[in-house]
Parts: sequence; C-alpha cells; structure tokens
Amino acid sequence: MPAPIDFYFDFSSPYGYLASEKIEAIASKHGRSVDYKPILLGVVFKQTGAAPLTNVPLKGDYSRRDFMRSARLLGVPFRMPDKFPISTQVAARIVLWMSETNVEAARTAMHELYRAYFSRGMDISDPATAVALAAQAGGIEAGTIAAAVESAPVKDGLRRANEEAMAAGVCGSPYMIVDGEPFWGSDRLDQVDRWLATGGW
Amino acid sequence: MPAPIDFYFDFSSPYGYLASEKIEAIASKHGRSVDYKPILLGVVFKQTGAAPLTNVPLKGDYSRRDFMRSARLLGVPFRMPDKFPISTQVAARIVLWMSETNVEAARTAMHELYRAYFSRGMDISDPATAVALAAQAGGIEAGTIAAAVESAPVKDGLRRANEEAMAAGVCGSPYMIVDGEPFWGSDRLDQVDRWLATGGW
Repeated sequence: MPAPIDFYFDFSSPYGYLASEKIEAIASKHGRSVDYKPILLGVVFKQTGAAPLTNVPLKGDYSRRDFMRSARLLGVPFRMPDKFPISTQVAARIVLWMSETNVEAARTAMHELYRAYFSRGMDISDPATAVALAAQAGGIEAGTIAAAVESAPVKDGLRRANEEAMAAGVCGSPYMIVDGEPFWGSDRLDQVDRWLATGGW
Repeated sequence: MPAPIDFYFDFSSPYGYLASEKIEAIASKHGRSVDYKPILLGVVFKQTGAAPLTNVPLKGDYSRRDFMRSARLLGVPFRMPDKFPISTQVAARIVLWMSETNVEAARTAMHELYRAYFSRGMDISDPATAVALAAQAGGIEAGTIAAAVESAPVKDGLRRANEEAMAAGVCGSPYMIVDGEPFWGSDRLDQVDRWLATGGW
C-alpha cells in the first residue's frame, strides 16, 4: 500500500477548505488515501511572522477576490464567512480525537465542519456548534465529544500536532506532502496530481 | 486593439522571472501584448509587512525548493543566485527609462537582465553590470544609460511607478492585470490563459 498524502490544514483557511474538497479524488485516482492533519495556523504564523491574509493591506482585497474566483474555478460552493478568521482549536481537537478511533468518522466530521463554515455561514468557533456538527456526522453522543475536547490529552495532542507539523516544514494551509515532497496551497493541486502520476519532474 | 496585460515585477523575484519567460506566449495566443512594469517589492513589503520569502522561517526552505521545481515544470533555465535578494533600483530604472522611447529595446533589456541574474549568476544590483547588459541589449551607449538612471526624473519615475502599482492593488511579484482582473503569482499563468480565452468564470 503506497503512503497516504499528508494533508495539513486549519479550519479557518479558505484555501484549505477548497483543497479538502478536491484532494480525495486526486488521491484515489492514484490509489492513495488522505491523512487529514488539523493544525492551528496561528502557531505557524508565530514562526513565519505571517498574518491572516484578509487583514493584510493590499493582500486583503486580492485574497477575498481570489477565494471566490478559486472556488468558482474548482466548482466548490463557497461563501465568505461574516466572521473571519476564527479560532479553530475546538474543531481541530474534535477531528484529532475522532481520528484516534475512527478515521472515517473523523473525515466525515472534518468535511461537515469545513462546509458548515465556508458554505453555510455557521460559526464553528462556537464549541456547541462544532460539537453538534461532529456528533451528527460521526454518530457520537455530543457530551462525549464535548468532554474529550476539554481533556488534557486531547489538548496536548493538538499542541504536539502543531509542533510535528512545523518540524515537517508546514508553513501554511493547505500543506500537502506526497512521498516526502511538499506542496503548499490549493493552487498546487494540479502539481500534486502530476507528481503522483509521474513520481516527480 | 485589446488592452495589453499589465505585468508588474521586481527584478529580485524568482517567480517574476519565471512568469516573464511565459507571459508573452500566452498573451500573443490571444492577440494581446504585455506591458512590463518594473517595481520595487521592498516598497510594497512596507505596506504588507512581508519579507523576502527565503528569509522567512519555514517558508524559506519551502520556497527555495519551489523555485527550482516550478522552473523545471515550466521548462525555464533557473539557478538560485548566491546573492539573494538584491537591490533592484538600477535595473528597474533602466527598463522604465528605456520604455519611454523604445518599448522593444526595453523588453529585450528586461529579459537580458532577468536571465543574467537568475540563470547566469550575474549580480545585476551592480550598476556597471546592469548598465552594460542593457547597453548591449538595447544598442545604446552605456554612458547614456548610466546618466539616465541617476537623473532625478527617472528616480522620480520609479517612485511614482511604485505608488501607482500599489494604487492598482499590486501586493507581490509577478502581479498581472488582465482587463481589470488581477492575478498574483507565476502559479496563476494557467488562469491568465483561461481568463483571456473565456473572459472570466
């Protein structure tokens, strides 16, 4: 079985959302699976000195336009959330915790959370909202999820995941690693496809 | 005659160089020309808070790898310069000044300067080097160019060009505007091609 594609993302990243809607079809075309790795971009930004794109002069206007245009090009439903960016600790912890016992349920919850935020205007930084979405997606009792995301091991797990991501070179979202080769950005999906097909160029 | 493609770039930008090798073929396919607009990214960075990619933790390693990989994918000769980034005032002023009287000569000099830096390892921040390259490319006496780039109107012209670029939204290099639609990055060349073919999506 060839190695999965590592897919690092933050739940507040529009480009992460767009790529999450496309990466599985690319992976499965080449007999690969996707290993979703939620991280907190805020921790990465402390290293890189970056800020959320929409808050940056000049880049803010461009990026809002590019989010919409990229979504149309990829055919992915997208609505710029009113509240942006948001805290994503709870959503990240939920997916991380669910992945430990049921990867499929975690994947379903991940898509549900991303779509709720970027196409249905829901505020997934609200813990009750995030937990309810994950509970329905994963068929898990909401109280169990709510308790898990506040537990020390899960909190530590996300901190460790962030450290491991930066150790792997992750500098943004989405950040995809294919057989050791890193690709940053949803505009690299075609290159990921090509790399998988050819083994490099 | 349809409007030219505005192509904003800094001579120290690897992605600007890569795109400069491809944009004319895309433009001419659609009956367009390219209006090359040299700017100083340092001035833009003061607005956006950005820094040269290679100096940024995490992004530095990624970008050096991506420069090479992007160049191979596009089939453009590329060698990472030992001295990077460099000051590009002189090269920018040369092309700006030449454009006023002979657009074709300016275009030839632009390619010559970019290739000297990114494929032949020459230091075009050295005024004598930049002037000599432009003199040969444009068939102009070196002394004439050297005097022009130190003249107040040409210096003012570049300052004005930077201001105009930022007023047009330019937030990086290359930054291409097609019929009012902005595209940032050499990884947007396919989108520029598609936009020209379809008028948008």
